[in-house]
Amino acid sequence: MIVDCHGHYTTAPQALWDWRKKQVSRKNISSQELRISDDEIRDSLEKAQLKLQRERGSDVTFFSPRAGSMEHHVGDAAISLAWSRVCNDLIFRVCRLYPKNFAPVCQLPQSPGVSPENCAQELDRCVREMGFIGCNLNPDPSGGYWKEPPLTDKWWYPVYEKMVELDIPAMVHVSSSCNPAFHFTGAHYINADTTAFMQLIQGDLFKDFPTLKFVIPHGGGAVPYHWGRYRGLAQDMKKPLLKDHLLKNVYFDTCVYHQPGIDLLLKVIPVDNILFASEMVGAVRGIDPETGCYFDDTKRYIDNSKLSPAEKQKIFEGNARRVYSRWKPA
Amino acid sequence: MIVDCHGHYTTAPQALWDWRKKQVSRKNISSQELRISDDEIRDSLEKAQLKLQRERGSDVTFFSPRAGSMEHHVGDAAISLAWSRVCNDLIFRVCRLYPKNFAPVCQLPQSPGVSPENCAQELDRCVREMGFIGCNLNPDPSGGYWKEPPLTDKWWYPVYEKMVELDIPAMVHVSSSCNPAFHFTGAHYINADTTAFMQLIQGDLFKDFPTLKFVIPHGGGAVPYHWGRYRGLAQDMKKPLLKDHLLKNVYFDTCVYHQPGIDLLLKVIPVDNILFASEMVGAVRGIDPETGCYFDDTKRYIDNSKLSPAEKQKIFEGNARRVYSRWKPA
Repeated sequence: MIVDCHGHYTTAPQALWDWRKKQVSRKNISSQELRISDDEIRDSLEKAQLKLQRERGSDVTFFSPRAGSMEHHVGDAAISLAWSRVCNDLIFRVCRLYPKNFAPVCQLPQSPGVSPENCAQELDRCVREMGFIGCNLNPDPSGGYWKEPPLTDKWWYPVYEKMVELDIPAMVHVSSSCNPAFHFTGAHYINADTTAFMQLIQGDLFKDFPTLKFVIPHGGGAVPYHWGRYRGLAQDMKKPLLKDHLLKNVYFDTCVYHQPGIDLLLKVIPVDNILFASEMVGAVRGIDPETGCYFDDTKRYIDNSKLSPAEKQKIFEGNARRVYSRWKPA
Repeated sequence: MIVDCHGHYTTAPQALWDWRKKQVSRKNISSQELRISDDEIRDSLEKAQLKLQRERGSDVTFFSPRAGSMEHHVGDAAISLAWSRVCNDLIFRVCRLYPKNFAPVCQLPQSPGVSPENCAQELDRCVREMGFIGCNLNPDPSGGYWKEPPLTDKWWYPVYEKMVELDIPAMVHVSSSCNPAFHFTGAHYINADTTAFMQLIQGDLFKDFPTLKFVIPHGGGAVPYHWGRYRGLAQDMKKPLLKDHLLKNVYFDTCVYHQPGIDLLLKVIPVDNILFASEMVGAVRGIDPETGCYFDDTKRYIDNSKLSPAEKQKIFEGNARRVYSRWKPA
């Protein structure tokens, strides 16, 4: 079985984005005003994610709202909550329509400067009432200005307590960038992955939360490429070896869009810490002229790697079962 | 000949840092109040950079003031100018004492929100009067808050005009981070490299400045690891192939502290765009327990790579001569 742990509903029907526009311009819009039929949902997926699953040979995608549209920086916490509920409810409908193809991962109602305690209730609702199996946690709800404390700060503990209670992992994933310095998928996403991992090196978060689990997307940002730097920095800081300090709790996905990058990832990061993912339909949509294949068809890179079948099985399925422990195939 | 294009005077005598402390606390300190003897300079280098050059077999280092201490965010433009002059003058003295071992690269008197036009005079002084061969350009003088426009914005053109006039390259290098989210050498440095490259993809800077040259340090941040993503993003944006769009003007150094990272760099980036560097004595100071060698002894990784002798010669010397065209070995 091929499990893709990182997909966003980037192709959601236009009515969703129209609703969002209205919400941002007038605050009292109701979720009842959003009307999307099951057929519209089917149509948005059949020609995109489902088609690509069939063509590329993946079976199920852990599916969350469009990351760039979480926009925690827009409006206040109430706006963020209403928007998160609407998006999560839509993901729930997707997964009810296609229970074999999608498993639900939720957006959190974060808001800049607001304690993440405000996320506990929506997270609880998603997991207990609707069967969600994970969440996306934004380390920078300001959208490119990085005003929140590091992920190791007690500021974040309320959401970690709820995650541990529910036994779900978080993918550490920022949203769009309001900062003109940072292109969102080319700089902000990758920087956030690198930044989060370095924050975890500096702290001792997993002493306080030994069962907390994070997935760092986009192949861990710059981390595997600079694995020597990170091992060396940890050593200079008198931290334990990274395998003991972080790798019981931190995982990397395979959203790296060329063979040499995937080969590096597989070489330096233990196979038990890697989860297959493609982020399709996502950041890069074209065909690589050097290979004739889609850049984000990451399954090919794993298939082409020198891993044993048992190792590939871990990356494609086994690790996902372990990390997303609430997930049970339909 | 082995040319290390990236070294900072991290071991400068304590008197320099004491002077800086005084400067920051009272603005009218004179450069005359800084007293460092030639022997103190020799002592600061003999047991550090020079010892490592001998042990590791490099011949010359392109040497600039400590990057983390540029601190463009501290004080105003006048403070930044006085501090830059003091630091650059000290680098000049180092290179006069050891003309075979060091070639000078300068710090610029940038200041947040101040037009980089203010850098032209100090850059001119360093290059024309003191024989400097390059400069470090900070894309984020705010120190981790990224308030300056992207490097492709006309805001930066005055300093590019001066660079082109003088025919010197800039290493795109941030300073310390005031933002608690960003560890300085583990996140801010690497993020800045990635960010700068993505800014260059988005723009068309080298149409306006066909002879401008940038070195992206730390192996290009996350860029080579995500080379497929960057090729794909450029393609989605209808930009030319990266080799035509950027690689006539942009170079990467080899400050990547493990063999698999260097192997990836050498595999995906054309050999003509890679310059040897170690950043010693720098970000990571320890010995890698997996190899028994210093993490930042990057020459070993190049030596151990599968490149031909001619290719290695380009990385160790030939490319540096081309990019730092004002440099002539003593």
